[in-house]
Amino acid sequence: MTATDPSPWKKPADRKRDRALKRDAVLRAAAQAFNENGFHKTSLDDVAERLNVTKPTIYYYVKNKDQILFECVRIGLDRLEEASAEIGTTGATGLGRLVALWRVYVQIVTDDFGRCLILVGEDPLPSETRKELRALKARIDLRFRSAMADGIRDGSIRPIDPKMASFAAAGALSWIARWYDPRGPLGPEELANVFIDLLVRGVAR
Amino acid sequence: MTATDPSPWKKPADRKRDRALKRDAVLRAAAQAFNENGFHKTSLDDVAERLNVTKPTIYYYVKNKDQILFECVRIGLDRLEEASAEIGTTGATGLGRLVALWRVYVQIVTDDFGRCLILVGEDPLPSETRKELRALKARIDLRFRSAMADGIRDGSIRPIDPKMASFAAAGALSWIARWYDPRGPLGPEELANVFIDLLVRGVAR
Repeated sequence: MTATDPSPWKKPADRKRDRALKRDAVLRAAAQAFNENGFHKTSLDDVAERLNVTKPTIYYYVKNKDQILFECVRIGLDRLEEASAEIGTTGATGLGRLVALWRVYVQIVTDDFGRCLILVGEDPLPSETRKELRALKARIDLRFRSAMADGIRDGSIRPIDPKMASFAAAGALSWIARWYDPRGPLGPEELANVFIDLLVRGVAR
Repeated sequence: MTATDPSPWKKPADRKRDRALKRDAVLRAAAQAFNENGFHKTSLDDVAERLNVTKPTIYYYVKNKDQILFECVRIGLDRLEEASAEIGTTGATGLGRLVALWRVYVQIVTDDFGRCLILVGEDPLPSETRKELRALKARIDLRFRSAMADGIRDGSIRPIDPKMASFAAAGALSWIARWYDPRGPLGPEELANVFIDLLVRGVAR
């Protein structure tokens, strides 16, 4: 065996990446199962079956169903928070930033993890783990409210109650997760356009 | 014992009303328990405890937890459908009727049964019973869309997509059930005013 021969064993860095990819696949398959059949009706056997592996293989990546749900909801929230942070706090008007945040929100709630965040939520989890998720949610809500407050100051948004408007928009957009069908006629982009037009301009002529 | 002496036994009509009242109390206590602790975490013992009765007493009024959930969701939907039917299809503009429908919707989703309809939903039920509930939901959705279509025709509503606008409004208003607190500062009337203003006029200046 010469120095250039590939070793039949993977390098530590590759093994680590490999493990992360497989763990992500386990979480995504679980999120899809939860979204389709509900958290309580899904077993780890169902998740294993979706991936053509055995249950012990699943246990190599995750501890139990609660931990899977926690991770799925956290991934959905993390992505929302990352994208929201990128939109930042400077640049466009408050309304411009709000619309950009809403667009990201629709992208997230139509993805497997975002749908899990909305459809299953943190309710089945023990109260200690729920706390961390709630803190993350509160941070995201604050970004929406702050864009609204800025918009009211810069004149791009009417003098509305940012708390109530943030709840109304979160409801309208989160609800998408309940009826969204990836095989349906409207993709996330088109849905975002239609919903944001309604939230920005209302229904009245 | 003379003819005017009251009998210690209740008249059949009174017994029937009494039974209906008690059954309603069982359903309401169950709806409250489901809303507070989730359907899966609630036992019939919890419901019995809330009413200071024994579990056999509960079984005198309902068959099992599934039946209770079915009834709670159905009551929420029935009330929405009754109130929607009262608003009718003639009279005000399409926008006027839509606003009246939205007002009723907020009343329902802040009530115990309406909250159960949104928070628990029909997902835990077997597929046969879900069908009846879905048919009722479709009927209500149709009322919202028809008011929108009328409003577009009479010029009170912009040329929007009634299906999407109905989904957006249902989301914004249903979401109220997730954070509404009867002890909070805003009652159903005030909430309806704030949310309807946002849906009608949008957030942009």
